[in-house]
Amino acid sequence: MADPFVMIAARSCLHEIITESHARCHYYLRHQRPILFSTLTLPTLPKHVAKCEYAAHGPVLRKAEELARQLLQQQAGPADRLTGVDGDQLPFDKIVPCNVGNPQAVGQQPMQFHRQVMACLMEPSLVERVGLFPDDVLERVSRYLSRLKDGATGAYSSPQGHLVFREDVASYLSARDQKDTEVDDVFLTDGVSAGVRMALQLILRGSEDGVLLPIPQYPLYSAMTVLLGGQPVGYFLDEQAGWNISVEELQRAAAEFRKRGGVLRAIVVINPGNPTGQVLSQGSMEAVIHFAKKESLVILADEVYQDNIHTENKGFMSFRRLAHEMGTAIEVFSFHSVSKGAVGEGGLRGGFVHCSNLRRDVRDQLRKIASISLCSNVIGQALVASAVTPPPLDGASRALFDQHMAEIKGRFQRKAKLVWQRLNAMDGISCQPLEGAIYAFPRVTIKGYIMKKAISFATPADEIYCTELLERTGVVTVPGSGFGQKPGTFHFRITILPDEDVLGGVLDSIERFHGEHAAGWFR
Amino acid sequence: MADPFVMIAARSCLHEIITESHARCHYYLRHQRPILFSTLTLPTLPKHVAKCEYAAHGPVLRKAEELARQLLQQQAGPADRLTGVDGDQLPFDKIVPCNVGNPQAVGQQPMQFHRQVMACLMEPSLVERVGLFPDDVLERVSRYLSRLKDGATGAYSSPQGHLVFREDVASYLSARDQKDTEVDDVFLTDGVSAGVRMALQLILRGSEDGVLLPIPQYPLYSAMTVLLGGQPVGYFLDEQAGWNISVEELQRAAAEFRKRGGVLRAIVVINPGNPTGQVLSQGSMEAVIHFAKKESLVILADEVYQDNIHTENKGFMSFRRLAHEMGTAIEVFSFHSVSKGAVGEGGLRGGFVHCSNLRRDVRDQLRKIASISLCSNVIGQALVASAVTPPPLDGASRALFDQHMAEIKGRFQRKAKLVWQRLNAMDGISCQPLEGAIYAFPRVTIKGYIMKKAISFATPADEIYCTELLERTGVVTVPGSGFGQKPGTFHFRITILPDEDVLGGVLDSIERFHGEHAAGWFR
Repeated sequence: MADPFVMIAARSCLHEIITESHARCHYYLRHQRPILFSTLTLPTLPKHVAKCEYAAHGPVLRKAEELARQLLQQQAGPADRLTGVDGDQLPFDKIVPCNVGNPQAVGQQPMQFHRQVMACLMEPSLVERVGLFPDDVLERVSRYLSRLKDGATGAYSSPQGHLVFREDVASYLSARDQKDTEVDDVFLTDGVSAGVRMALQLILRGSEDGVLLPIPQYPLYSAMTVLLGGQPVGYFLDEQAGWNISVEELQRAAAEFRKRGGVLRAIVVINPGNPTGQVLSQGSMEAVIHFAKKESLVILADEVYQDNIHTENKGFMSFRRLAHEMGTAIEVFSFHSVSKGAVGEGGLRGGFVHCSNLRRDVRDQLRKIASISLCSNVIGQALVASAVTPPPLDGASRALFDQHMAEIKGRFQRKAKLVWQRLNAMDGISCQPLEGAIYAFPRVTIKGYIMKKAISFATPADEIYCTELLERTGVVTVPGSGFGQKPGTFHFRITILPDEDVLGGVLDSIERFHGEHAAGWFR
Repeated sequence: MADPFVMIAARSCLHEIITESHARCHYYLRHQRPILFSTLTLPTLPKHVAKCEYAAHGPVLRKAEELARQLLQQQAGPADRLTGVDGDQLPFDKIVPCNVGNPQAVGQQPMQFHRQVMACLMEPSLVERVGLFPDDVLERVSRYLSRLKDGATGAYSSPQGHLVFREDVASYLSARDQKDTEVDDVFLTDGVSAGVRMALQLILRGSEDGVLLPIPQYPLYSAMTVLLGGQPVGYFLDEQAGWNISVEELQRAAAEFRKRGGVLRAIVVINPGNPTGQVLSQGSMEAVIHFAKKESLVILADEVYQDNIHTENKGFMSFRRLAHEMGTAIEVFSFHSVSKGAVGEGGLRGGFVHCSNLRRDVRDQLRKIASISLCSNVIGQALVASAVTPPPLDGASRALFDQHMAEIKGRFQRKAKLVWQRLNAMDGISCQPLEGAIYAFPRVTIKGYIMKKAISFATPADEIYCTELLERTGVVTVPGSGFGQKPGTFHFRITILPDEDVLGGVLDSIERFHGEHAAGWFR
């Protein structure tokens, strides 16, 4: 079976080499002398830099940025200066970003309690203004400031983050996983991406080392693995089984990689799933843990959507907790952040990684890697601590806090149901249940003109599909090929973050677009 | 000449292998069965992880942390439970951290204007409280918020950072360097460390690629180069010439590396110098630029101390500006941050890198690397923009702002002179002029007992020296061997950040300690 990562990378390299050669020939023809070589040119960059791909910022998003500028001109200037897809006005008046999981960019409001705490950490004199903020905010701030001492938020913390914040995270994890948690196993990081990078830096020794990644996957994992010189090894999630994991598929992927001479080091799991929206069954999770134990793999558990579960039938179970309950002492890195859930503060880059069962000397090496960049941002650290510690039950902030949580939960439940039902009602589109996370990843049957264009441009059909959808409706999605998918199938990822009425319009657009495409209306 | 980086690394690896083997033998003897192998163990970690060293968090700091805990117990509990170096009480009542350039941890106050702006960005409703903050703060906040639009600080920005903040940085750079600056050449990063990592990821292709680094150097550069699989290639700064750079030394270092089959890719310069405190002469800078051009090297210019210049004789000149004035179009990455200078906000992790003369397609690759981690923290981004844009001249905040700047500048000037004069007045200690940055890097003559101990423990003599200084006085410094130095010479780095009276006490301690050591008082 063709490796989807290799195919993505090969296409990208080829494109870059052609562009580069073209530019040089062109320069030579015009100036009759070779181009002055820069030290850094595409052909001389590290191979793994050119090879790594990050789909969420891929060609469809670039097209969207271009159209947004065009729309701005269109709305400002005279109509005759502006052209759309076919030299006309653009056929929509707004770009609707459904591509990135960026809650506050599409209307989710920050939680007031946390923001008030952060404001006081930035300007501690606010604490003295009587009546400005409620007592529970002031108590929280005073607890933090009394422990931060010299320099407060303005000084570097220790490389793993301030102890007071790690204590809050450790308490949260002890309660969640029913297992004591050491503060020194907690690393506070600039979002989860930085934690994943550090973990992979600790794991990947060279080009023979591989990391098992789900297909489809959030492309951070393949991009970072490639960038750090390792090999992504895809295992397919079973779409028909609600994107669950089978041990046979893990064995197949591992065996094929070993046949090529590779050494497996770790397995990535994303639960709830991104882009797939499933909450893994306990069977899937047990299969992963047994497999990791048998094969001596480290588990990297991306659990950033643990607070985004929309189904009543399943709760969140962490890989760390289940592994412990199964009596295995395998190494698990658990990632969580403030970027999703009801907090949704992506811009503040607060995340943590908890390392289970890591040898102490190995953990010291991880700490050393962290120390090279000094520390993560202290506001992000504080927000992580605050986010895992709700305001006191009897405090003035609690009612609003609970209301915000309940509203967000309710909205997500309604939106997950709406998107799932409407997508499945469309001819040629099917979608697994949206149990968690903030995306749908529907499978689409692509036909006619788009299929032909895909073949003649040697471009994945879903990339053409998403580009056409964007150019005709203004809806930004991410093609399934950016996340990986079974060869011959096509998908796209769409967030369920926008408000319900906006989302309704988006679904109308998709329905109309898909119908017209299937009916052969596009030339 | 023995390569100091290789020596540091070899010592470290050997130590780890011995510890590891020892632990396994011990386990086997006790339990009569081999230790259960973890997946991640020191011998199976990536070689470059074990090899990379970050001296600022090295053994002396770890000892300091241990003593701080001991001191806490000593001050809390009964005296007989506690022991110092020789089983006695510790001979000091306070640890004085002079090891890290962490301004606010040792008393530097945050700048009120910036902090008020940040507090409003965290809690925008504060803007509506009449009289809470001055108008110039509110104007700044409103300018930022009107441009951030949806999601404000809570949403991910574009991978390079929000446009409005990059515009402020570009204006600052245009004025500073007398050269137009493109916003798309500016990348906002989580402190400078993240920017350096991204630049080196773009540059280093494998183990044959080398980066020229000053010796002594801030160890971020060697650590990151090693971690990313490249080779640090040291060039010695000329201590007698005020830590300046000679072209002959650059040529020597390059030639020796090439003889070993290496490919040079870049040169790191730190100006003002860390740990060395010089402001590079124009001659040194021109030599670097000519050399980089001739050898097709990228320049990485660490200019984070550009606002910490204490001499009246020299101003700051950026490498970007000088290269431009010399008419060369070489690639220069310029780094700056909010962590030093009068702002001193290390904990908020705001930094930027400006890329001069980078090919656009290569810059796109840098953007792709940035996009894998989504974006840097938005508060750090805002602070960078605010820090390079003083409040308006006629605004209510300006007087206090200017006073803060002047006080900090005055204090640094006095402290630089004090430390330089007093160190040079000590027998067996000499120190180059402290023209900039926030450190002194005196050369010390080490004698007797410490020298003997260094030989028998196969440990650099300055590491023993700094450890003994710590254990006897509570003063934390960093041994010169952590930054690299000419073989046979010894140094330590000490920050000039603490308040003048504290610094006076620190210098008294050093003088007493050094005198007693030289007089052979220690056994």
